[in-house]
Amino acid sequence: MSKYGYSIDQLMELAGLSVAESIAKEYPKGKILVCIGPGNNGGDGLVAARHLSHFGYQLSLYCPVKPKKDLYRNLLHQCNAHCIQEVEDLAVAISEADLVVDAVFGFSFKGLARPPFDKVLEAMRSTDKPIISVDIPSGWDVENGDANGNGICPDMLVSLTAPKLCAKGFKGRHHYLGGRFAPPAMVKELGIPEYPGTSQCVRLEKYRCP
Amino acid sequence: MSKYGYSIDQLMELAGLSVAESIAKEYPKGKILVCIGPGNNGGDGLVAARHLSHFGYQLSLYCPVKPKKDLYRNLLHQCNAHCIQEVEDLAVAISEADLVVDAVFGFSFKGLARPPFDKVLEAMRSTDKPIISVDIPSGWDVENGDANGNGICPDMLVSLTAPKLCAKGFKGRHHYLGGRFAPPAMVKELGIPEYPGTSQCVRLEKYRCP
Repeated sequence: MSKYGYSIDQLMELAGLSVAESIAKEYPKGKILVCIGPGNNGGDGLVAARHLSHFGYQLSLYCPVKPKKDLYRNLLHQCNAHCIQEVEDLAVAISEADLVVDAVFGFSFKGLARPPFDKVLEAMRSTDKPIISVDIPSGWDVENGDANGNGICPDMLVSLTAPKLCAKGFKGRHHYLGGRFAPPAMVKELGIPEYPGTSQCVRLEKYRCP
Repeated sequence: MSKYGYSIDQLMELAGLSVAESIAKEYPKGKILVCIGPGNNGGDGLVAARHLSHFGYQLSLYCPVKPKKDLYRNLLHQCNAHCIQEVEDLAVAISEADLVVDAVFGFSFKGLARPPFDKVLEAMRSTDKPIISVDIPSGWDVENGDANGNGICPDMLVSLTAPKLCAKGFKGRHHYLGGRFAPPAMVKELGIPEYPGTSQCVRLEKYRCP
């Protein structure tokens, strides 16, 4: 996207907003725990958490590795200013949540999750709370999906910009597309579906992958 | 807003999006000319133009002074990637537009507009096309309003974060609030009205200024 002049701040803001909007379309107000990974997927999750708090949900964050980049520190600072609590005990936090957002790993993930994220994936796999995955279910390979069987099985997947090949293996109830920033040439090239009105997300009724 | 850890890219993205959403709530699809000033107000206008093009409007830009900062060059580059044309002849561009967005001067403007922006304000004052002003009608003083009588009389005003004192003098048909990023303490302190659902803007039925 950088060839179109976008900054990471802009893309992350629109991506996170679209995740929050997708969640608000399908789940009633309640308690949401957002699990934050070490990279851009985690950044999207921090933005989504802030917008969800604006939409009236009760948010908490599980962020086992504190990101060092200024961008993430600032996103975390914004969440703190929105009175979003960070939690230490993942098991308790999941048990108290109505929904869990999986913003741990994204499309660049390969292989097996390392500590402490292996435990986060394990906890999300073993709960019966609905999981919402950001762009890619954590632990999945962007093309091969849950090849090693250690990935998440989310109830909702919010694909960003365009669904990745692995989305073919998504078996949950709600598949949305978000990240409404692709210019016309890219929309055409990737066959990105149309968004309704001013919405930042669109529900995909069946698997649609460029 | 910087004390809450926001970057200018983030704030401008949400501000511009809220302007685009406000316009889409009140005006049917058509041709929109966006007049871009030399500062942050112009940046908000560039973001709004891009989102309006996503929403199905036909956009063009009048940008008499090319901004030098990377942020603005990038925003302009994004507009170019969205096939938004820059126009040279303001009079012709206004005559061909259904709506004109005034993103020339914002809350830091004082005194009288200098060339070439004096001509832009004059052209916007003398057209009967509906004008949408971003945050402050251009030429107005943030507190005293159109004290020198050289300002714009917009049909719509989209106040950002919170209405400024000068909004008391707004006589147009549509007053909206946008820029949904104020944390709870600021919302309380400034008496910022509630936004509906996931909307990035809210219509203000009467003047509401903190």
